[in-house]
Amino acid sequence: MIRVPAEPIGRLPDAWRHCVGTGRIELALRRDYQDSLKLIQDDIGFRYIRGHGLLSDGMGVYRPYEWEGARRVHHSFTYVDQVVDAYLDLGIRPFLELGFMPAELASGEQTVFWWRGNVTPPRSHREWAALVKATLTHLVDRYGLDEVRTWPIEVWNEPNLPDFWENADITAYHRLYEVTAGAVKEVDASLQVGGPAISPGADEWLDRFAEFTEERDVPVDFVSKHAYTSGPAQHVPFGVRQTLAPAQHLLDQFATPRNRLKGTRLAELPVHITEFNSSYRPDNPVHDTAFHAAYLAPVLAGGGDHVDSFSYWTFSDMFEEAGIPTALFHGGFGLLTHRQVRKPTYHLYAFMARMGPELLARGEDHLVTRHADGRVTVLAWAPVDVSGETPGPARHRLRLHIPLGSWEAFVRRSTVDEEYGNARTAWQRMGSPRSPDAHQLDVLHEAAEPGRRHLRLPVAEGRVAVDLTLGRHEVTLVEVSPVQDESPPWADERRLLGGQPR
Amino acid sequence: MIRVPAEPIGRLPDAWRHCVGTGRIELALRRDYQDSLKLIQDDIGFRYIRGHGLLSDGMGVYRPYEWEGARRVHHSFTYVDQVVDAYLDLGIRPFLELGFMPAELASGEQTVFWWRGNVTPPRSHREWAALVKATLTHLVDRYGLDEVRTWPIEVWNEPNLPDFWENADITAYHRLYEVTAGAVKEVDASLQVGGPAISPGADEWLDRFAEFTEERDVPVDFVSKHAYTSGPAQHVPFGVRQTLAPAQHLLDQFATPRNRLKGTRLAELPVHITEFNSSYRPDNPVHDTAFHAAYLAPVLAGGGDHVDSFSYWTFSDMFEEAGIPTALFHGGFGLLTHRQVRKPTYHLYAFMARMGPELLARGEDHLVTRHADGRVTVLAWAPVDVSGETPGPARHRLRLHIPLGSWEAFVRRSTVDEEYGNARTAWQRMGSPRSPDAHQLDVLHEAAEPGRRHLRLPVAEGRVAVDLTLGRHEVTLVEVSPVQDESPPWADERRLLGGQPR
Amino acid sequence: MIRVPAEPIGRLPDAWRHCVGTGRIELALRRDYQDSLKLIQDDIGFRYIRGHGLLSDGMGVYRPYEWEGARRVHHSFTYVDQVVDAYLDLGIRPFLELGFMPAELASGEQTVFWWRGNVTPPRSHREWAALVKATLTHLVDRYGLDEVRTWPIEVWNEPNLPDFWENADITAYHRLYEVTAGAVKEVDASLQVGGPAISPGADEWLDRFAEFTEERDVPVDFVSKHAYTSGPAQHVPFGVRQTLAPAQHLLDQFATPRNRLKGTRLAELPVHITEFNSSYRPDNPVHDTAFHAAYLAPVLAGGGDHVDSFSYWTFSDMFEEAGIPTALFHGGFGLLTHRQVRKPTYHLYAFMARMGPELLARGEDHLVTRHADGRVTVLAWAPVDVSGETPGPARHRLRLHIPLGSWEAFVRRSTVDEEYGNARTAWQRMGSPRSPDAHQLDVLHEAAEPGRRHLRLPVAEGRVAVDLTLGRHEVTLVEVSPVQDESPPWADERRLLGGQPR
Amino acid sequence: MIRVPAEPIGRLPDAWRHCVGTGRIELALRRDYQDSLKLIQDDIGFRYIRGHGLLSDGMGVYRPYEWEGARRVHHSFTYVDQVVDAYLDLGIRPFLELGFMPAELASGEQTVFWWRGNVTPPRSHREWAALVKATLTHLVDRYGLDEVRTWPIEVWNEPNLPDFWENADITAYHRLYEVTAGAVKEVDASLQVGGPAISPGADEWLDRFAEFTEERDVPVDFVSKHAYTSGPAQHVPFGVRQTLAPAQHLLDQFATPRNRLKGTRLAELPVHITEFNSSYRPDNPVHDTAFHAAYLAPVLAGGGDHVDSFSYWTFSDMFEEAGIPTALFHGGFGLLTHRQVRKPTYHLYAFMARMGPELLARGEDHLVTRHADGRVTVLAWAPVDVSGETPGPARHRLRLHIPLGSWEAFVRRSTVDEEYGNARTAWQRMGSPRSPDAHQLDVLHEAAEPGRRHLRLPVAEGRVAVDLTLGRHEVTLVEVSPVQDESPPWADERRLLGGQPR
Repeated sequence: MIRVPAEPIGRLPDAWRHCVGTGRIELALRRDYQDSLKLIQDDIGFRYIRGHGLLSDGMGVYRPYEWEGARRVHHSFTYVDQVVDAYLDLGIRPFLELGFMPAELASGEQTVFWWRGNVTPPRSHREWAALVKATLTHLVDRYGLDEVRTWPIEVWNEPNLPDFWENADITAYHRLYEVTAGAVKEVDASLQVGGPAISPGADEWLDRFAEFTEERDVPVDFVSKHAYTSGPAQHVPFGVRQTLAPAQHLLDQFATPRNRLKGTRLAELPVHITEFNSSYRPDNPVHDTAFHAAYLAPVLAGGGDHVDSFSYWTFSDMFEEAGIPTALFHGGFGLLTHRQVRKPTYHLYAFMARMGPELLARGEDHLVTRHADGRVTVLAWAPVDVSGETPGPARHRLRLHIPLGSWEAFVRRSTVDEEYGNARTAWQRMGSPRSPDAHQLDVLHEAAEPGRRHLRLPVAEGRVAVDLTLGRHEVTLVEVSPVQDESPPWADERRLLGGQPR
Repeated sequence: MIRVPAEPIGRLPDAWRHCVGTGRIELALRRDYQDSLKLIQDDIGFRYIRGHGLLSDGMGVYRPYEWEGARRVHHSFTYVDQVVDAYLDLGIRPFLELGFMPAELASGEQTVFWWRGNVTPPRSHREWAALVKATLTHLVDRYGLDEVRTWPIEVWNEPNLPDFWENADITAYHRLYEVTAGAVKEVDASLQVGGPAISPGADEWLDRFAEFTEERDVPVDFVSKHAYTSGPAQHVPFGVRQTLAPAQHLLDQFATPRNRLKGTRLAELPVHITEFNSSYRPDNPVHDTAFHAAYLAPVLAGGGDHVDSFSYWTFSDMFEEAGIPTALFHGGFGLLTHRQVRKPTYHLYAFMARMGPELLARGEDHLVTRHADGRVTVLAWAPVDVSGETPGPARHRLRLHIPLGSWEAFVRRSTVDEEYGNARTAWQRMGSPRSPDAHQLDVLHEAAEPGRRHLRLPVAEGRVAVDLTLGRHEVTLVEVSPVQDESPPWADERRLLGGQPR
Repeated sequence: MIRVPAEPIGRLPDAWRHCVGTGRIELALRRDYQDSLKLIQDDIGFRYIRGHGLLSDGMGVYRPYEWEGARRVHHSFTYVDQVVDAYLDLGIRPFLELGFMPAELASGEQTVFWWRGNVTPPRSHREWAALVKATLTHLVDRYGLDEVRTWPIEVWNEPNLPDFWENADITAYHRLYEVTAGAVKEVDASLQVGGPAISPGADEWLDRFAEFTEERDVPVDFVSKHAYTSGPAQHVPFGVRQTLAPAQHLLDQFATPRNRLKGTRLAELPVHITEFNSSYRPDNPVHDTAFHAAYLAPVLAGGGDHVDSFSYWTFSDMFEEAGIPTALFHGGFGLLTHRQVRKPTYHLYAFMARMGPELLARGEDHLVTRHADGRVTVLAWAPVDVSGETPGPARHRLRLHIPLGSWEAFVRRSTVDEEYGNARTAWQRMGSPRSPDAHQLDVLHEAAEPGRRHLRLPVAEGRVAVDLTLGRHEVTLVEVSPVQDESPPWADERRLLGGQPR
Repeated sequence: MIRVPAEPIGRLPDAWRHCVGTGRIELALRRDYQDSLKLIQDDIGFRYIRGHGLLSDGMGVYRPYEWEGARRVHHSFTYVDQVVDAYLDLGIRPFLELGFMPAELASGEQTVFWWRGNVTPPRSHREWAALVKATLTHLVDRYGLDEVRTWPIEVWNEPNLPDFWENADITAYHRLYEVTAGAVKEVDASLQVGGPAISPGADEWLDRFAEFTEERDVPVDFVSKHAYTSGPAQHVPFGVRQTLAPAQHLLDQFATPRNRLKGTRLAELPVHITEFNSSYRPDNPVHDTAFHAAYLAPVLAGGGDHVDSFSYWTFSDMFEEAGIPTALFHGGFGLLTHRQVRKPTYHLYAFMARMGPELLARGEDHLVTRHADGRVTVLAWAPVDVSGETPGPARHRLRLHIPLGSWEAFVRRSTVDEEYGNARTAWQRMGSPRSPDAHQLDVLHEAAEPGRRHLRLPVAEGRVAVDLTLGRHEVTLVEVSPVQDESPPWADERRLLGGQPR
């Protein structure tokens, strides 16, 4: 029996919901995307959103033309404005990532993804700087400096990988960073710029980024990197299988920048994990499972110890890096499928959003918080086995002794596991319909609802004993509320049908 | 094991959703009322709605005034139009009940209900006829004759009770009926008028209504009466307790008009039960229970054998006959509480709305139908004990052998019982909060969701064996759908985490 | 030519939108009411809303009952919560008025209005105090003390009139005030209580209120009174005609409390005009006219000099003090008719809401402000003649020399007068249909749109010359915005159809 | 004075709203697109919508893969379903155009448009047929045969142009048509297939299509072609200028198929103009003007004489054939700009949608219809000069003597011209802001409202004299409604302010 302290041991950090990832920015023009983001903002409430492709051709920003014999450039914000207006309307702000390269400004033809983002350096750094300045200037004009200075600005994405930056050329990246940071600061010195947005396994880039920016006195307002735990992809049609390292590896990766940058000029800066997930593949079915929620639960509970934000990659399956999905469940990164079916990991986030601000306790399988109104909220999860050798223990027991200021407690429990809050299980039972019809979608939406129970428990000596048995891969949210009994003295269930009490 | 026939034995009659009752028409101006009706129309889809007070002072129709020394009358439709516009927008039509008496047209001061409907005959039958004609003429002008001729027009409410019609004077009622029917037909002969809208226990009024209308050749287009099964009220503050007769008594009451009117001129007319429920009291907690849904299930399943409609009294707890409710759950008639918390009986109706058009089987604890797409739907219910001596058996088993044209079946079950789909249970556990706050309302909305399970079953020789165990007071909906398996050959759950199959 | 200063002479006070009036609180349950309030909050954005009847029977708060031989009382908040939840959702807060008397707590039977508000003192001041405490305690529990302490609490309404307070008994009012203020402060000392909510022409009540509260050291947090300018009612069926005093009389009435209370303990308190309008009758057609907007324009422009708020009585024609309206336009107080047709005075308020925070100039026919983005906004109005002898001058000219920081100006003008923004004119031309059908309502909504024009003007030496000619009873809003010309050099309207420029 | 007959001369044909064009189908996933379509369906109500690219890579339908050493194909409908679901929800049906070629099924690499639609024949006609069959089969499964058989299916787009079909190879097109029509009919013989979807100036393709399909007995259910009137493009950056032929040329083009196909097997088939407009360029500012509405008015009024439908190309500026628009007004085809600013031609369509079903008169500058309720509606337009030499006459007068069954008439007029209903004029005055901010968008939405006036006219001998003066490029809608005067005898505007009538 774990005795939960009556006094808070701190505040629950907000890093888990500081930011969320998205498929390329152009997709934000879509209805399904905006419907999903609305649902997510209502239930979870992320602060920022980050995705690729702000400057790619699909957004139509860089627009050279000829006039009177000379080459000129329009910078056009038709779609940028539609996207940012939509974000702000939905209560979320852009975490700007500057990239990829407009084809007509690119020095080469190498592209990444099905949608062909150009990943070569600019043909002209002067024009690139002008593009960056025009973009930031426009945003400041339209949304105000007070607003835009709260938006982090990240330079490029995973330049340490040759798929994302031609030859993974560190010198070229540093040059791009310097030019970009300079352009940003020319617009306003209070705008926040950062990088190097590296993928896992390239932490030496942090050291060199610190050296370079110190040497040349290049502005850096935050440091960013990514974290993933999957092994190499074993391909099947429209999908992959991958091994996963234990979730602790994510926390370890989060911890790297602060450890590594100690003593450098970047030591005290905010650290943002601008992407994290288990697998880095948008076609790995693990993303759709209850396992995944249970796997990530300790990461959400503890990640805030190490960084200022860690951004789940991504909020929706509206995502096309590996092509257009061919089935409703296809292993996409999304917390939501197309058409807003909630996955188990969605519920993990929604449960976190219902935790209170006061942190009462934290353990390897639980997190306990309190709200201002006295309600105590427990997030608990079953341990998982990433080897896949066993599906994890069938039952996991957790007993908490929870402080509560009343005579009785109302306990409300929401469960996500292999059976409940798990539309993929229903989908498989229905025959894995790639294009579910309206009736099937209705079933899936219903199957995505968590299991729910409630009961009333006595409070003894200011404490309720909450005894939880978790199923395989279960994540559960338990709310314990004080009861004030208003039932009148004449209430008597035994006389409901008019008879005398037996 | 019940063998469900593969060929339909008929169509499922629509009488159960032909009409629903409402608190006095003036309440239709309210937001909560319209929100509830919208939800109901989305989930259930009633055709007509009937309530008291169309001509009462709160609707402001009858408006005498003086001008140049003479008494004149405006007939004003400011609120009538707002109400009818709202109904039609929500996809429901008025089943018009003409009553009660405007105070300035009344011959006496007797009123009924907290809201004081005047129940005395008109001071002037000529002015009453003018009021009726003006009202129908206005409706025909505004909505078109093709529309209005589909709206039944009922004369008064329960004139056999002295509370609703001064002295329960049958002669006075017949005179009112004759004058009213004449006025209606003067507007257009195709408008449908009927009565006598009597309460239970006064079936001799049917005989006399038949005699009177035949003798005087008064038009009658339909016959109406009410049905209730509760005994006398034992009062407690803000509530009552009552015994109930078995549900079969409702079916028996439904059957009376056709039996009794055989051989009269009214024999072939449509029969509408324009009100029915268990208790006739708006403060009997039985309305809020799972017991109530299980009690009424056989009535909904079988009522269409006897009548053209039977109208549940009423769709919402927005109802003020006994005063303004003092607690969220207060024993109101509503399928919904204020703020749209769904009661078990709501789910009974919503389950009925998901049944298919082809009737395959009907028994004392089940109803089986099929949809055009081959899906088979079962409504099943546990038997109830109205004596209150026992709470009903704890378990009730039902085995069905269901025809299905596929190799496998997807089975989806929705359950309402003492625990699931039962917000009242949660409300009691929370301490019966009379004015639940936003968080408590959220809990209640969640607790009102039915329990849900799904599974996959084999089909053998064109049939699925569905074995149901129902809990106490359970009403359950089971959908059995054909499965077309689209899962690809490479799907392999054992390799989800990248390993080789064990 | 009026030279508008380039530097602000102050801030535009917010008193004009601090509060708005409403028909009795119970009407807030209605859909049309809430639809109107939503529109108003979107276009105008009032801070508070005040109406009668919070404690009247229609709200169902005071609920005595018998149990075990004793008389007890429930205080029930079923409807209060629905109303206040709706207000807060719509972004408006209650300005609480405590009254009228629940019938079962009343000492007499005198009522006011068609809807019969009981205006007699409580039978028991102890029970009244308990009712007040229970109400405030409930509100604090539900909405939080930080919220509720921002809601002013006014004791009763117009006690100086025998229609509103039995015998207009000042001693009885003072006793009521003292008991009420004490009960409020018992809940929390920070709650704000005030009075005496007097009608015009009874300013000596202010002196006596000051004396009484000083003598007995009764808490007073604000002082309230009402202001109207109409003469006695000449009745016609469903309406009245009244003379009006010039609008300056309203400003004079606003000024009274501060003048009169100088030197008393109440001298520095906030002063709220908790009702004002021209006529105090809900059936005076003047409320529906363009005259009315022009008449009130200087009051909105200048009222903030005298008081902390002046609350237009009322926002909507959903109002029943003189019975249910019999025609769409019936002289109601509303800024909006039923079904959200905007009246000229609505536009006056909507225009005020588009003024900027910096006050540049104010005159007898104009108000000039500036927004943060440099836009200058002019509200101008034609003078009116309240004698009705002449309809006011047909033309009124106003020339302003407006400072602007650009080379050219875009000028946008919105006009409300006898022809534009004037649905009543259209309604009369349509034949004054009492119950307009859907097509007629569409015409009326369209006719309620202001007239609109725009043009481009040159800026010379940092100023634009704006020359306005106003029609009879016109109120006009003119926005003057700096132009940044982005039209490209190749733009050439003359070549639109492909030809060469002529 | 034109005397409008009192009896109808026929029904107003519906061809003008049978279909509307859209940018490539993939854009239907976007929010702005769907918002625009919703507005259009509310105001205009098209029956069908047609656009390119259903089978292009952006829709992700054709998806080859390898499994166990063999090449296989998935046909995937993730996006097709989202689009068609959205269309049906919005009350519009797809007019299917089968094309362009999936890259992996294409025989070559030639593409058209910024978005690169592949325009080469299939590498395998067998796989193309399988793709067509799979698509139609899926649609029939999902939406039902009764629904899908109402959707016309057109084979390819403008195969007579080498830009749209490699080498404009007629033999290759006929082969494609034959294979496609066969595949469609294999799904169900009742599905409707047609072609040849030719651009203007290639009418000999009609003859050869008739010969080919007759010779080989290939099914054809309808004939389609396109119509445009613009001359060659004179390019400027991000735009063109073009001359236009008179609007009569459109009607002449509409008339061609029926004339040309007389005597062939195709003679009696429905003819659909599946695209028409003035200019075929999405960057010609003429589309945004009042001129354009006046130019097309006689085409909408008369086109139904010649064809079963003529489909305006396109409903929205959300269109990317020439790249992403760089300014709000950019000469796009749309009836609406991005963000739903209505252009003059939008109003022309919305005016047509308000015409009645009975055709009373038609002339070169007017169209007169009557509604079932007796209302008479006039669409009138000013003649235009396409030479651009003169801007058209400044004033155009039209006098109509209109039959009406009442004593007085209410006349409501809506005007679109250079000043009203013309957001482009406002936009230019504002400085042509390429990315208007929220305030500017508000101005533009307001400026897009038609000018409105209303008045009351006498009816003499059953007729109203309506005397219209139209401004340059004006299109006007005049509704003449019978008046039933309900104003009471005591109404007296002269006594509004309480005085005695002068």
